[in-house]
Amino acid sequence: MLKLFYSPGAVSLAAHIALEEARAAYELIRIDFKSQQQKSADYLAINPQGRVPTLVTEDGALTETPAILLYIARRFADAHLAPADPWRFARMVSVISYVASTVHVDNAHLNRGYRWADSSAAIAEMRRKAPDVMASDLRLLEDQMGQGPWILGDQYTVADAHLFVMTWWAEPDGVPLSRFPNLRAHLDRMQEREAVQRTFMQEGLSFR
Amino acid sequence: MLKLFYSPGAVSLAAHIALEEARAAYELIRIDFKSQQQKSADYLAINPQGRVPTLVTEDGALTETPAILLYIARRFADAHLAPADPWRFARMVSVISYVASTVHVDNAHLNRGYRWADSSAAIAEMRRKAPDVMASDLRLLEDQMGQGPWILGDQYTVADAHLFVMTWWAEPDGVPLSRFPNLRAHLDRMQEREAVQRTFMQEGLSFR
Repeated sequence: MLKLFYSPGAVSLAAHIALEEARAAYELIRIDFKSQQQKSADYLAINPQGRVPTLVTEDGALTETPAILLYIARRFADAHLAPADPWRFARMVSVISYVASTVHVDNAHLNRGYRWADSSAAIAEMRRKAPDVMASDLRLLEDQMGQGPWILGDQYTVADAHLFVMTWWAEPDGVPLSRFPNLRAHLDRMQEREAVQRTFMQEGLSFR
Repeated sequence: MLKLFYSPGAVSLAAHIALEEARAAYELIRIDFKSQQQKSADYLAINPQGRVPTLVTEDGALTETPAILLYIARRFADAHLAPADPWRFARMVSVISYVASTVHVDNAHLNRGYRWADSSAAIAEMRRKAPDVMASDLRLLEDQMGQGPWILGDQYTVADAHLFVMTWWAEPDGVPLSRFPNLRAHLDRMQEREAVQRTFMQEGLSFR
């Protein structure tokens, strides 16, 4: 059976939602960041970066949210979580890649600046600038979303789950979603989905 | 016909190599960073981030290296640039995602620290730390590479082209490849490929 290693409210939320949307059979295993469990030898053996998510399959351990999302969409093809059309599929990968390597990375500068600098001054400066950088990232997605209802238009895909984590993070991270009405409406639509509600219940999270 | 917008030696090199490996028919269009052409209204209309690469297809403009690489592999399926097996395909996406959202991002802190901080002190601090961070990123890929010959083992894929850009950047960016013999051997194997040699000729680049 599949095993998803997660931390509540972390970006692993996207993979968790995708598994619930697919009505997959899987085991959910919490990694406790407070006790630094992600740095334990056992966990580093399956995820050398010490991050979440990791999806363990019968073939081995898979890391990186984009890889996990595409894998779930393909394995549970009947759930139609990715477009069949090659061009629309490519656009979905583009959104996921932008979220992973720009939006999420810019978000990491809020609380994980120590990855890129050592002095408390530089780390504090990254923290101060991060909400503006994230807002500029979200502006592109706001424009792309338009009336939606989903980021690719009519079809709900795993890219919506990934994007949702970013908008669910936005307000507590200092980016008011009132500036992005299309993304706010998307967040609301996501929170109405039964798969998202089941996921939030399992992770003990609150809607925004 | 496909159009690839690129800048010599930028990460667009990966998509360029993939098109050459596929023996695709495409037009190559250089974006001049020195004259800030990537910020022109015409270019921002197809790539709102003002970055390279962009692949323009008959269906529209595609951004983000991972999306472009997967699109090329699928469109030119006869070139076998991606594994057919779902698990191996997922592992390829994992490598590409790690390169895009960790290795390339950490590299960006060398010369593009202004994205995340404003003071010259903080930007200089990121620049100083960047080679160590990149070295730690490459360590994971060194271990994963093993004897190769390719990052997924026997099959050459678009992930090799993406990874190669990082190792081709490494030495001038202050990360001695002598510390990573498996990656050094991979760089050499890449530079022996005819598609890579054609790409280097077209972009006016030098081997390392």
